Amino acid sequence: MSGNSFGVIFRFTTFGESHGQAIGAIVDGVPPRLSLTEADIQMWLDKRRPGLSPFTTQRQEPDRVQILSGVYEGMTTGTPIGLLIANVDWRAKDYADLLTAFRPGHADYSYWKKYGVRDPRGGGRSSARETAMRVAAGAIARIVLGSSVTIRGAMIQLGTQTIDRTRWDWTEVPRNPFFCPDPVAVHAWERCLDSVRKRGSSIGAVIEVTAEGVPPGLGTPVYDKLDADLAKALMSINAVKGVEIGAGFSAATLSGEENADEMRISQEGRELFLSNNAGGILGGISSGQPIVARLAVKPTSSILTPRRTIDIYYKEKEIVTRGRHDPCVGLRAVPVAEAMLACTLADHMLRQRAQCG
Amino acid sequence: MSGNSFGVIFRFTTFGESHGQAIGAIVDGVPPRLSLTEADIQMWLDKRRPGLSPFTTQRQEPDRVQILSGVYEGMTTGTPIGLLIANVDWRAKDYADLLTAFRPGHADYSYWKKYGVRDPRGGGRSSARETAMRVAAGAIARIVLGSSVTIRGAMIQLGTQTIDRTRWDWTEVPRNPFFCPDPVAVHAWERCLDSVRKRGSSIGAVIEVTAEGVPPGLGTPVYDKLDADLAKALMSINAVKGVEIGAGFSAATLSGEENADEMRISQEGRELFLSNNAGGILGGISSGQPIVARLAVKPTSSILTPRRTIDIYYKEKEIVTRGRHDPCVGLRAVPVAEAMLACTLADHMLRQRAQCG
Amino acid sequence: MSGNSFGVIFRFTTFGESHGQAIGAIVDGVPPRLSLTEADIQMWLDKRRPGLSPFTTQRQEPDRVQILSGVYEGMTTGTPIGLLIANVDWRAKDYADLLTAFRPGHADYSYWKKYGVRDPRGGGRSSARETAMRVAAGAIARIVLGSSVTIRGAMIQLGTQTIDRTRWDWTEVPRNPFFCPDPVAVHAWERCLDSVRKRGSSIGAVIEVTAEGVPPGLGTPVYDKLDADLAKALMSINAVKGVEIGAGFSAATLSGEENADEMRISQEGRELFLSNNAGGILGGISSGQPIVARLAVKPTSSILTPRRTIDIYYKEKEIVTRGRHDPCVGLRAVPVAEAMLACTLADHMLRQRAQCG
Amino acid sequence: MSGNSFGVIFRFTTFGESHGQAIGAIVDGVPPRLSLTEADIQMWLDKRRPGLSPFTTQRQEPDRVQILSGVYEGMTTGTPIGLLIANVDWRAKDYADLLTAFRPGHADYSYWKKYGVRDPRGGGRSSARETAMRVAAGAIARIVLGSSVTIRGAMIQLGTQTIDRTRWDWTEVPRNPFFCPDPVAVHAWERCLDSVRKRGSSIGAVIEVTAEGVPPGLGTPVYDKLDADLAKALMSINAVKGVEIGAGFSAATLSGEENADEMRISQEGRELFLSNNAGGILGGISSGQPIVARLAVKPTSSILTPRRTIDIYYKEKEIVTRGRHDPCVGLRAVPVAEAMLACTLADHMLRQRAQCG
Repeated sequence: MSGNSFGVIFRFTTFGESHGQAIGAIVDGVPPRLSLTEADIQMWLDKRRPGLSPFTTQRQEPDRVQILSGVYEGMTTGTPIGLLIANVDWRAKDYADLLTAFRPGHADYSYWKKYGVRDPRGGGRSSARETAMRVAAGAIARIVLGSSVTIRGAMIQLGTQTIDRTRWDWTEVPRNPFFCPDPVAVHAWERCLDSVRKRGSSIGAVIEVTAEGVPPGLGTPVYDKLDADLAKALMSINAVKGVEIGAGFSAATLSGEENADEMRISQEGRELFLSNNAGGILGGISSGQPIVARLAVKPTSSILTPRRTIDIYYKEKEIVTRGRHDPCVGLRAVPVAEAMLACTLADHMLRQRAQCG
Repeated sequence: MSGNSFGVIFRFTTFGESHGQAIGAIVDGVPPRLSLTEADIQMWLDKRRPGLSPFTTQRQEPDRVQILSGVYEGMTTGTPIGLLIANVDWRAKDYADLLTAFRPGHADYSYWKKYGVRDPRGGGRSSARETAMRVAAGAIARIVLGSSVTIRGAMIQLGTQTIDRTRWDWTEVPRNPFFCPDPVAVHAWERCLDSVRKRGSSIGAVIEVTAEGVPPGLGTPVYDKLDADLAKALMSINAVKGVEIGAGFSAATLSGEENADEMRISQEGRELFLSNNAGGILGGISSGQPIVARLAVKPTSSILTPRRTIDIYYKEKEIVTRGRHDPCVGLRAVPVAEAMLACTLADHMLRQRAQCG
Repeated sequence: MSGNSFGVIFRFTTFGESHGQAIGAIVDGVPPRLSLTEADIQMWLDKRRPGLSPFTTQRQEPDRVQILSGVYEGMTTGTPIGLLIANVDWRAKDYADLLTAFRPGHADYSYWKKYGVRDPRGGGRSSARETAMRVAAGAIARIVLGSSVTIRGAMIQLGTQTIDRTRWDWTEVPRNPFFCPDPVAVHAWERCLDSVRKRGSSIGAVIEVTAEGVPPGLGTPVYDKLDADLAKALMSINAVKGVEIGAGFSAATLSGEENADEMRISQEGRELFLSNNAGGILGGISSGQPIVARLAVKPTSSILTPRRTIDIYYKEKEIVTRGRHDPCVGLRAVPVAEAMLACTLADHMLRQRAQCG
Repeated sequence: MSGNSFGVIFRFTTFGESHGQAIGAIVDGVPPRLSLTEADIQMWLDKRRPGLSPFTTQRQEPDRVQILSGVYEGMTTGTPIGLLIANVDWRAKDYADLLTAFRPGHADYSYWKKYGVRDPRGGGRSSARETAMRVAAGAIARIVLGSSVTIRGAMIQLGTQTIDRTRWDWTEVPRNPFFCPDPVAVHAWERCLDSVRKRGSSIGAVIEVTAEGVPPGLGTPVYDKLDADLAKALMSINAVKGVEIGAGFSAATLSGEENADEMRISQEGRELFLSNNAGGILGGISSGQPIVARLAVKPTSSILTPRRTIDIYYKEKEIVTRGRHDPCVGLRAVPVAEAMLACTLADHMLRQRAQCG
C-alpha cells in the first residue's frame, strides 16, 4: 500500500536509503527448484554500478549482493529470497547544504510535504540507489522467464541527438558507456556528455527496451493490461517522464490502415506479423511478437548551476548541488529498465499459469 | 489478479461484455456520508455516450446507470456501491464475419491465444463498452476528491494536426464534438475526420488531462509513484500506446537547468513554482502544482479497408470490419482519461490519509 | 481494502444490502473453458434459501441467480463473471423500530460507530442475505476444483446437544432440515428448536465441514497458511465465534505422541496416515488427507424477548426484534461454510499452480 | 501471494530460515514521525527469546535486531523499515537424521509435496524461528496503536490443566516462565512440564490475548471482519489449531437472551456493555469493549519418543527428533500472539482512517 512492493505473484519488496547501512529486498513467489547463485545476480548489478566511467557518479559502491534465504544448495526452495547490499561509500557531508533547502525538480520538497520529515542524506529513499534492488530482482526474474526470453535495452537518444536505427548493432551496446547501439553516434555522444559534465549540467535521454521470445497470452484484458503494468513499471523508475509501447506517440499520426499489423502464415505454418506497431501487445495481452517499449528520462536535478529555490522556513534561496552526480541518469537507467521489463513479464507469466494453466 | 479491479483503497471492479446483458461495477472503499445520486454519475456517462455526433459509433446506448447498493437516502453508507447498465442495442449479427478471423491490431488474436476461447460478439470484454464503467467510477471519485479538485481533459492532436496552445480555451471544449480547446483547429479537424469517416478509415489522437487543486503529498516514493499509477491508469485505456507527464518525452531534450522548476515565495507567503516541467509530480509525489498528463491513442483497428489476416484454422484471409465504429476512438477517450485520473487521485488521497493522517 | 472481496486469484467481490434492489457479485480469475450454467449455481442457492422449513426465517426469496457476463455458450471465457440476484421480498416496515435503537449483540451499534450512518433496513450489509453470494461463488469454486474434490458439511451440535459420531451418515444430512448426520439426534433437535422458536428465542450450533480429494501442496508456509485462510473464511461468516482445524481445541490436551499422525506405506505403495489430528493440514499446507474444520455459530441476536439497550440519542431503551428471523442461524450456515471452504481451496489451488506449476 | 506478507496498510514481509544466515523483515506503511529505536523492538524480542528457562529450547539466540532503514534520528520517516536478526547458533548437525524422513505432524512432508525440495535444516522456513519477526513487527504495531491501547496475553491452559479465572492476576504473568496469570496453577504446571520434558514428550496449551482501549469502528463488514482477520493472524502462528473470539465455542450452547450483551448508559453518559460475550467485536467491527481471543496450540511434533513414519523413498521408518525443542511451544506463542493481535489492530486502525477519516 505504501508502494515498496512490485508485482503480484512474482513480487519483490525493498527497503533502504541512499546513506543508510544497507539496502535490501525480499523476492517472493519465485518457483522452486530453479538454479540461483549470488553470481547470477551480481553480473547484472555490475552493469548498473556507479563509478564505472567518467559519465556516471564517482561514488564507489561495490554493490556486493548477499542471498540470505530462499536458496538451498544452489537451488530456490520456493520460500522468500532475502537480498542485502551493504552501503559502503556514504559521504553524508556532501549533503550538508541540502538539509533545509529543496533542490528544484527533486523529491526533496514533495517528501517533506508528504511526511513532514525526511532523511536528507543523499535523497534518502528517493535516491537512484534504490534501483540496485530492482536490478537484483530483475536478475531473478530472468531466471524465472527462462532462456527462451531475451531482454535487452539501449539508449537511443541523448538530449536532442538520436541514433540512426539503420546502424543498430546489439553487439555495440556493451562496448560503450552509453549502452548505445549505433557506433557512429557514440563519438558525438561522448563529446556532448563530456561538455555537459564539465559545465556541471545534466541532460536527458530516451531508452528502448525489448523482450523477444515472450509467449502469447501474457497480460490481462482490462486494468492490468501488460502494457499498463509495463508503463507503471517503467514510469516508476527515477526521472522517467514518458513511456510508449510499439509505435507509441507516433501511432497518433497513423491511419487505421497504416497502423494495423497484418498477418500471414509462414512457410512453417505459423502466424506471421508483417509489422509491429503494436509493440507485441494487443488488447493488453502479448501477441508473441517482440515487446518494444521506450522511456524518456529527464536530466537530473542535481546540478552545479545555481537555481532559485526556497527552504523549509519559507525563505528564498539559491542552491547548488555539489555531491557526486550523474550528468545523464539515463545511462544507468538502461539496466534498470531491462530489470523492470523482466519483472513485469515474470509476474504475468506466473499469473497466466495461475488462471489458464 | 485477473485485472478487472483498479485501485487499492478507492477500488472498483467491473464486469461485462460488449454484447452481454449488462455491464456493471462494484465501487468499494468510498467514504461514508457523501451525497451521491444516479444523476451525479449519469452526467459524466452522457459525455462519453456513443451516437452523439457523426464522429462516434452510431450504436445507440442510453447508458442509463442504476445504483443498486451502498447509498441510503442519497448518502453513501461506506458499503460497496453496485452499479449496473443494461446493454440495449446489441446487434450481434454485425460481427458474424469475425467469428473465426482476427482483425489486425485488435485483441481478437491475443484473447484467443490467452484463453483458448473468446466471446466474439463486439469484441467481448475488449470492447470500448467497458470504459463506461470507468466513467461511472470516475464520477464517484470526483465526489471523493471534493470540489477543490478540478479535473479536465482535451484533445490536443488529431492525426498530425496539433492545436495552437496559445488559443487554448477551456470553454470551447464542450462546444465541439472533439473536446478541442482551440476554436480554430475545430474546423480543420471537422473536415479531416469527415474525410476519414467517409473512406471507412480511422485516425489517432493525443489527449491531455489535468488536475488542479490537488494537495501536495499524494503518491508513494518507489513503485506506486503517483505518475507510475497514472501511467498505468491511462495506458490501460483501450488503444492508448503512450503516456507522458509534464514535459514528458521532450524532457529528454532539456538540460538540468532548463528542466528544473525553480521556486519562489509568493506575495501571500506561499510556495510558488516558476514552471511546471514536472507536471505536478516530484519523485512520484504530488507537489501541489497542476497534474498534467498526455496520452497517445492509436487509430481503431476496426476499419472498412480490407486488411490481410489469418483465422483460427491458420488460413490466410482478407478482413473488413463492418459494424459501427468510431473513426477516432480518441474522442471518446477524453472523458475516460479524465475518469482514470480522478480514480487514481481519489485512491492516493485515501492512501495518504491512511498512512500520514 | 474495505473487505468486500475474498481470495487472491480466484477472487470474488460482492455488493448489496438486505433490503436494496439486488445483491450481486463479480467472480474473477475463473479459468477459461469450464462448463458453467445458471443451474450449476442455483442448485446450491436452493440449499441455503430461507423459508424452506419452519426452522428458518419465513422471508420468501426465490434467490434466482442471473449470470450477466463471463460465460459464452455455456463455457467460461476467463473474463469476470457478473452475478445478480434481485431482492423480491422486502418488508422494510418490520424494521421501523430499529431505526434508532441498537439490537444487543448485533452489528447495528458498531456500524453506526464506524460509518456515522447506516442502512437500518434488515441490517443492511450485515444481513445474512449477503451469504447468498458466498454460496454462488462457492458453486463456481466447486467447478474450478473439479469432481475429484468433495466438499460436505453437517451440523454436529445444536445448543448443548451433540451428535453421536458413531452414527454419522452422510446420506441423512439432506433428509432433515438441520443438515444433521445423526438420524437419532434429528428427533431431539426438532423438539428443541421448535421450543426455541415458539418462545421467540434463538440458539447456537457447531458445524463441521470437510473436503476430501484435496491434493497435497495447497497453502503457503507462513501468513497465508491454508488453515489461516480457512479460519478467516469461516470466521467471516455472520455469527461465527470460533474455528478449529482437525483436533482443534482438544489438541491442547494431547501429548506429542498422541497428536502425531503417524505414517505408513499402503499396499498400493502410497503414503498412509494412521490418524488425522492435523485435519489435513501440516505447517499450513495440505497433506492430501481430508481437510476437517469446525465452526461455532452464536445464537442470533434478533429475538422476541425484550433486551436492554440504548439508542443513537444515548437514551436507555428496551428492544424486541420482531421481523422474521432464524431461531438457529447455524442451519443456514452449513451451505455457506461449504462454499467458503470451496472458495478457499479453489484460490489456493490456482495459487499453487502459479508458483509451483 | 506466496504468503510471506501480513496486513494491508500496516504490512510486513519476512524472510529467513531457521538455519540460514539471518532472518529479516520489511515493515511498510508505518506512519511518519513516530519515535522508534532498536530498544523499542528488542524488549519484546527478549520476551520471546529461547533459552530463558528449562521449559524452552536450549538453542541460544541473542536475537539482536538491527534497524537498517526507515528511521532517521530516532524517528520514523514513512519509508519502509528494514529489520535484520543474524542467526548465531546454527547446529545443523542435529538435523542430519531428518534429511530424508518426515516427522509425523510436522511440515516436512507437506513442504516436500508442495515444492519438491526443502531446506531440512531446522525446519527451514517452517521453524518457529520465523516468529521472531512477527514479534519485531508487533513492537512497531504497538507504537502505531499508541499508548491508549493495551495488549496482553496469558497462558490459561496447559494440557488438561486450566487456570482458575477468579485468581487472574496480570502482575503474575511476567513472574513465571508460563505467562500464567494464576499463581496457584504455576506450581502444578511446573511439575507437569518438568515431567513432560524429562520423558522427551511435549504438550499443548491454550492462550488468551486481549486488547483494551481499542476504539470502536475497526474492521470491515464482510470478508475482512476484524475477527476474521484476527482468526487468520492467530491461526497462522505455528502449531495453532483453533481460534475463538469472546464466548467462542461456548456461544454455541447459549440462547439468544444469554448471549446478547445488553447496553446501558453509564453515569458519565457513555455507552456501557453489561457483558462481553462478543469479545469486543460486533458484525466484524470493534465495539469499544476489550477484544478477547483464545488460541489452541498443539504439542510440538519434535519429540524423543520414536514414531512411525516414511521417507522420501517411500520406505517405512521410525523417527526420533533429537535437536533442542520446546516441550510446550505454547509458552513462546504468548508474545507471538500478542504481536499478531497488535499488527491486526494497527492495520485496521489505518484502514479505518483511510476510508472513514
